[in-house]
Amino acid sequence: MYYLGVDLGGTHIACGVVDAQGSILAQAETPTRAERPYQEVIYDMGQCALAAIQKANVKQEEVLSIGIGIPGLANNDNGYVIFCTNLGWTDVPLRDELQKVINRPVYIDNDATVAGFAESIAGVSKGLSSSVFLTLGTGVGGAIIIDGKPWTGAHGVASEIGHLTLVVDGVPCTCGKSGCVERYCSATALIRMARETAQQNPDWLVLKRLGDDPGRITAKVVIDAAREGDGLALDVFNRFVKHLALTCNIVVSFLDPEMIVLGGGVSHAGDFLLEAVRRELPNYLMYKTLPYADIELAQLGNSAGIIGAAMVGKIYIEGA
Amino acid sequence: MYYLGVDLGGTHIACGVVDAQGSILAQAETPTRAERPYQEVIYDMGQCALAAIQKANVKQEEVLSIGIGIPGLANNDNGYVIFCTNLGWTDVPLRDELQKVINRPVYIDNDATVAGFAESIAGVSKGLSSSVFLTLGTGVGGAIIIDGKPWTGAHGVASEIGHLTLVVDGVPCTCGKSGCVERYCSATALIRMARETAQQNPDWLVLKRLGDDPGRITAKVVIDAAREGDGLALDVFNRFVKHLALTCNIVVSFLDPEMIVLGGGVSHAGDFLLEAVRRELPNYLMYKTLPYADIELAQLGNSAGIIGAAMVGKIYIEGA
Repeated sequence: MYYLGVDLGGTHIACGVVDAQGSILAQAETPTRAERPYQEVIYDMGQCALAAIQKANVKQEEVLSIGIGIPGLANNDNGYVIFCTNLGWTDVPLRDELQKVINRPVYIDNDATVAGFAESIAGVSKGLSSSVFLTLGTGVGGAIIIDGKPWTGAHGVASEIGHLTLVVDGVPCTCGKSGCVERYCSATALIRMARETAQQNPDWLVLKRLGDDPGRITAKVVIDAAREGDGLALDVFNRFVKHLALTCNIVVSFLDPEMIVLGGGVSHAGDFLLEAVRRELPNYLMYKTLPYADIELAQLGNSAGIIGAAMVGKIYIEGA
Repeated sequence: MYYLGVDLGGTHIACGVVDAQGSILAQAETPTRAERPYQEVIYDMGQCALAAIQKANVKQEEVLSIGIGIPGLANNDNGYVIFCTNLGWTDVPLRDELQKVINRPVYIDNDATVAGFAESIAGVSKGLSSSVFLTLGTGVGGAIIIDGKPWTGAHGVASEIGHLTLVVDGVPCTCGKSGCVERYCSATALIRMARETAQQNPDWLVLKRLGDDPGRITAKVVIDAAREGDGLALDVFNRFVKHLALTCNIVVSFLDPEMIVLGGGVSHAGDFLLEAVRRELPNYLMYKTLPYADIELAQLGNSAGIIGAAMVGKIYIEGA
């Protein structure tokens, strides 16, 4: 039996047919074009799902569920998307609309949650009972896996790790609060800190290389310069790592999972990032001499969205 | 069938026989006198347990397990206390020593964990699947209940909420780190802030009432003065509440439980504290318009230690 996974992004919708072990048999993609009415976006999602099923050469009846990972919040009681800021969606009947095209059971969850679950099914945290996943991208998303399943909380608002307050009265956040983890541990945060550095140091080599245009600073530029030993870039990187280690300590001291998995764009910095976080974390731990969570890099990359969404659908249908 | 619960404190050891519903049938108490060798303390604990069993008029064989709540960390694989700072214990074979006096299965857990579990069995969070308990005392302890059971983490170091970093590079903590929740949300923190206020305001009415002795400031004094409308006391209280609300937001945004239960000495401030935290919390929430955890006061008071320890023993023995 198979499970369809949908990764609903701001620019693309990716659909894949996944087996019970979390392997993708076939996948298809279509542009989101989110500026359209949601009905059209969801119609295309359905066609994309059908295309993936055809490519996989399985029957529609063999697809037991459709799981959808969205960059927002959903209500699985009624199948509505509550918020999905990137797409401009509020209270969208995603399940009902999609079932007009492909009539299978539909379940919706947060994209970070499904990506974290994918890692625990088929990635770096495979088979672990408990893990916490952090996506370090434009923002910071989170997923909590407990007893091998995603924990989404009593009201569906759990694992918003990007919006824990890390710095009291700190940098204002897009969410309306200030000092959120996301303002210190995202690619956006790295870029912000590097631009501040550039402003204070107009002769900075990194800035010269970019034609004196601070608008061209990316997370990769900062990390590459830090890796090469540039002092100012290292300073930015170390501040980033300090805040990420503080966030990991919140995870360890609060939930104490078996593993913390780092994913998202910034995690492409690889071992340079991983080793820095592993070095810094013990400075913030309560029990430095006791075992604590392994810190690891995510393994599944872009496939995590499809695999995790499909596996979340599997869990729901098995629990239904 | 019955379960024995032991509340091991720095000054007293309390033992109680508890039924499967979490009601105490009978209890006994003995001084800890922690300066003695641990063997003597544990011998007295055993005698106290036997006294409680006799008072309850049940047979020793009807007591299925002994659960012990300790102000520290334990390893239930070998029955050792790993750390117990208040008692000066490190690597103490509590299970083996106790079984010399009363040979029943022994399980050990953190005192905040057992108190939080007690509330979820017989107190304010009774019957809820998920809750988080915060003890606001000399320090700040925490308990996480998930699926109706204590979650102590993959390495037994979960729910150390008192030692999450709340203020980066903040007030130095007794644990060796700085800026921990405990430094802002405990009775000790209220007293520290009030003493600072007293130093800056030698004419403060609260200080006059205490014979100009800042050493006599207690959490109760500060809260009572705030309740009466004293401006400086209100300022201290409001700073305390702000940090407690920030801590509650970490709990909501990370774990999203059904309820957050406030216990410990500071919670005796009652509705004055509860209403202040409930008012302040929405300022820090990510999703202000969605339902989130109820904030409530603990109900069981000192009985929570015995009840929770007994019920933790029950869970272990049923899982064994």
